[in-house]
Amino acid sequence: MGFSFGKDVRMRGFTETLSVEEAWKRFTENVNIKKMEVEEVDILQSLNRVLAFDVFSPFNIPPFNRAAMDGYAVKAENTFGASKTNPVILRVVGSVEAGKSSNVVVGDMEAVKVSTGAVMPKNADAVVMVEYTEVLDGEKLVVYSPVYVGANVSKAGEDVKAGEKVLSKGTVLNPHDLGLLAALGFKKVKVFRKPKVAVFSVGDELTDLGENRRLLNGKIFDSNRYFLLSAIKNIGGEALDLGIVGDDVEKVRLKLLEASSKADLTIVCGGTSVGEKDLVPKAVSQTPNSKIVVHGVSIRPGKPVALASVNGKPAVLLPGYPVSAMVGFHLFVRKIFCRMLDSPQLENLCVVKGKIIRSVPSNLGTRDFVRVSLRKVGEEVYVEPVRISGAGVISSMVKADGFVVVAEDREGLKEGEEVEVILF
Amino acid sequence: MGFSFGKDVRMRGFTETLSVEEAWKRFTENVNIKKMEVEEVDILQSLNRVLAFDVFSPFNIPPFNRAAMDGYAVKAENTFGASKTNPVILRVVGSVEAGKSSNVVVGDMEAVKVSTGAVMPKNADAVVMVEYTEVLDGEKLVVYSPVYVGANVSKAGEDVKAGEKVLSKGTVLNPHDLGLLAALGFKKVKVFRKPKVAVFSVGDELTDLGENRRLLNGKIFDSNRYFLLSAIKNIGGEALDLGIVGDDVEKVRLKLLEASSKADLTIVCGGTSVGEKDLVPKAVSQTPNSKIVVHGVSIRPGKPVALASVNGKPAVLLPGYPVSAMVGFHLFVRKIFCRMLDSPQLENLCVVKGKIIRSVPSNLGTRDFVRVSLRKVGEEVYVEPVRISGAGVISSMVKADGFVVVAEDREGLKEGEEVEVILF
Repeated sequence: MGFSFGKDVRMRGFTETLSVEEAWKRFTENVNIKKMEVEEVDILQSLNRVLAFDVFSPFNIPPFNRAAMDGYAVKAENTFGASKTNPVILRVVGSVEAGKSSNVVVGDMEAVKVSTGAVMPKNADAVVMVEYTEVLDGEKLVVYSPVYVGANVSKAGEDVKAGEKVLSKGTVLNPHDLGLLAALGFKKVKVFRKPKVAVFSVGDELTDLGENRRLLNGKIFDSNRYFLLSAIKNIGGEALDLGIVGDDVEKVRLKLLEASSKADLTIVCGGTSVGEKDLVPKAVSQTPNSKIVVHGVSIRPGKPVALASVNGKPAVLLPGYPVSAMVGFHLFVRKIFCRMLDSPQLENLCVVKGKIIRSVPSNLGTRDFVRVSLRKVGEEVYVEPVRISGAGVISSMVKADGFVVVAEDREGLKEGEEVEVILF
Repeated sequence: MGFSFGKDVRMRGFTETLSVEEAWKRFTENVNIKKMEVEEVDILQSLNRVLAFDVFSPFNIPPFNRAAMDGYAVKAENTFGASKTNPVILRVVGSVEAGKSSNVVVGDMEAVKVSTGAVMPKNADAVVMVEYTEVLDGEKLVVYSPVYVGANVSKAGEDVKAGEKVLSKGTVLNPHDLGLLAALGFKKVKVFRKPKVAVFSVGDELTDLGENRRLLNGKIFDSNRYFLLSAIKNIGGEALDLGIVGDDVEKVRLKLLEASSKADLTIVCGGTSVGEKDLVPKAVSQTPNSKIVVHGVSIRPGKPVALASVNGKPAVLLPGYPVSAMVGFHLFVRKIFCRMLDSPQLENLCVVKGKIIRSVPSNLGTRDFVRVSLRKVGEEVYVEPVRISGAGVISSMVKADGFVVVAEDREGLKEGEEVEVILF
């Protein structure tokens, strides 16, 4: 026999599994999660990046009082009492088109033609919409309706005041934010550098994707790495693919060194439980300036997850079972990104409420992540558990829309109970 | 005066505004929205792309019966009755490691050592976890606990059966989907080509972003284009930036030709209302093989939106007011993408329910889009209108978390009413 289970393996076991909060506390107390440096990028490159500074408006928006409608800029009081049968006659003394500067002034009983967006002429305080006017002889304006002071005018600073804080550091920039930054004239935007995350998988049973889809007996395709590389991309990281390493402590150790030298965070998938083939913790312990800080968390699935320091940098060791790996990722890697990018927003999850349609058992003392799918019938949202157990069942993650979390102090969920679903 | 409002302008007006559904129907009946071609990309490049085929599993997952735990593969019946005080003794006849093929067979009262993920030896139907065993003299296995048939074994096809449909055409591929595709051995994935969308803005008042942030009097920075270019990217399109065109029908016409020859869809922002400076519809009417199909939709803000055919291809003409442009985009461009990418999923919006904390007025016959922000207090979600009106108020979109839609047959929302918020 090429290998044996020593007694030490069983005794090591997971004698101590920590709660998620305890695990996180111990990790952050023992491992330095460095904040990313700031870099300046073109505004269109800043989409979905994390803003690195508070943005204060350098000027008013709009920058000037402007016409909000096509029509005539007037003194409002001159139009009071105007009606269809008893119109007011004003004299047209000029015009301002949008985008043009102008020194034209509106005097008493005068009007200036304006197009939407035009600078309001001096002394005018309202715009009569073109629909309520008629022009006679090119300069006599017949006004059929009164306007109040400020009517159809956008005041300077009405949208944003000069000096106002419009966006906060840590914002993940969406298209609306980019629109606002453009309105303020920002061609370049300061954002946090994308965290570099190195990923590799461990296991003799793993085959990498290749030109054909043949598997040798006993082998499976490495799926976790592709989940991880793309999930990292989606939360704003730069993923480095370091491939697959066989079950060999020394090779894992060398790969850990490579990963930690190239990346800000290392994620290893597989080989992290307490069987003798679970050699990643062993490899960490043989690497200088490295240690396992947490090994075993009270979650299901995902219990064998470990958090470590490798070469002074953070590392997350995920179990090889696909669903365990995914839960471990959603729980810890997002949190690490929040720290690196100084952005609490990254942890905001989209939550939907609904009624669970089947009871779900769960153990006291463990936080269970139940995969569920959603179905909307009329006003009611029904939550259906996709599969209660089976950490290896990758198809369940595809069928599921999200997780329901069963807290440590609950022995399960009751049919018909209202639950919160954390959407993927 | 350099320009004049003719009577025709007022009479044209929006005598006919269509409902969103009517507008969409007329558009799709008159304009050919072409489905994108299929292209094959590397699996990691397929993230967030739209799958172009139904995926059937070419084999079982797992591909073979496998050990789900470290331990010993046995015939379950041989362990019945085993206990701490009255263990069963089996003979260890071999071992199988994960990733290795093996011809080892388990006979009566025999056991084979297995690690998690290993191929199950022939005739074995259960795995005794290593924790419940002890080895004496290297080959005597003491079993302290019975196992049932199938215990700690993942059956071939338990996750996915050969021939099973696992993903549907039209799926927007997320990291979980990529994990599944990798498990099935797909190195390349067929997806729909990204729609090319050309964007330009129209208006003499617009200044493009530049090295400094100075604005001449009467000018504003073009913000809509940056919103649009990034929003297109976020829904899976390839955005082509065609810059700003001044208020000149001939220049707009040439730009329309350029846009429609380079892109699958053209989006023009500004110049689409009924003022005389609203020259985009005019430019469309002067372009061969082009026509305005819809002009004016019963929405607020966003009423002046127009849908057109330019050079036989679809075009969306958005108002220049930022919020109107954003509403028009969310309403129509997403829908066009659904057609081009054959993916109804693209229109699934994330919806959250909550209580509106202030009444909101609205006009009968108009679909109103009310910008709101969300606040969670305990179990309750409070929905606060950010600003009821002001189509130009770009800051409101940044402060808002989403829209509440007030239907055409409602005269507003009542304080305390439960509403659905469509999240951005």
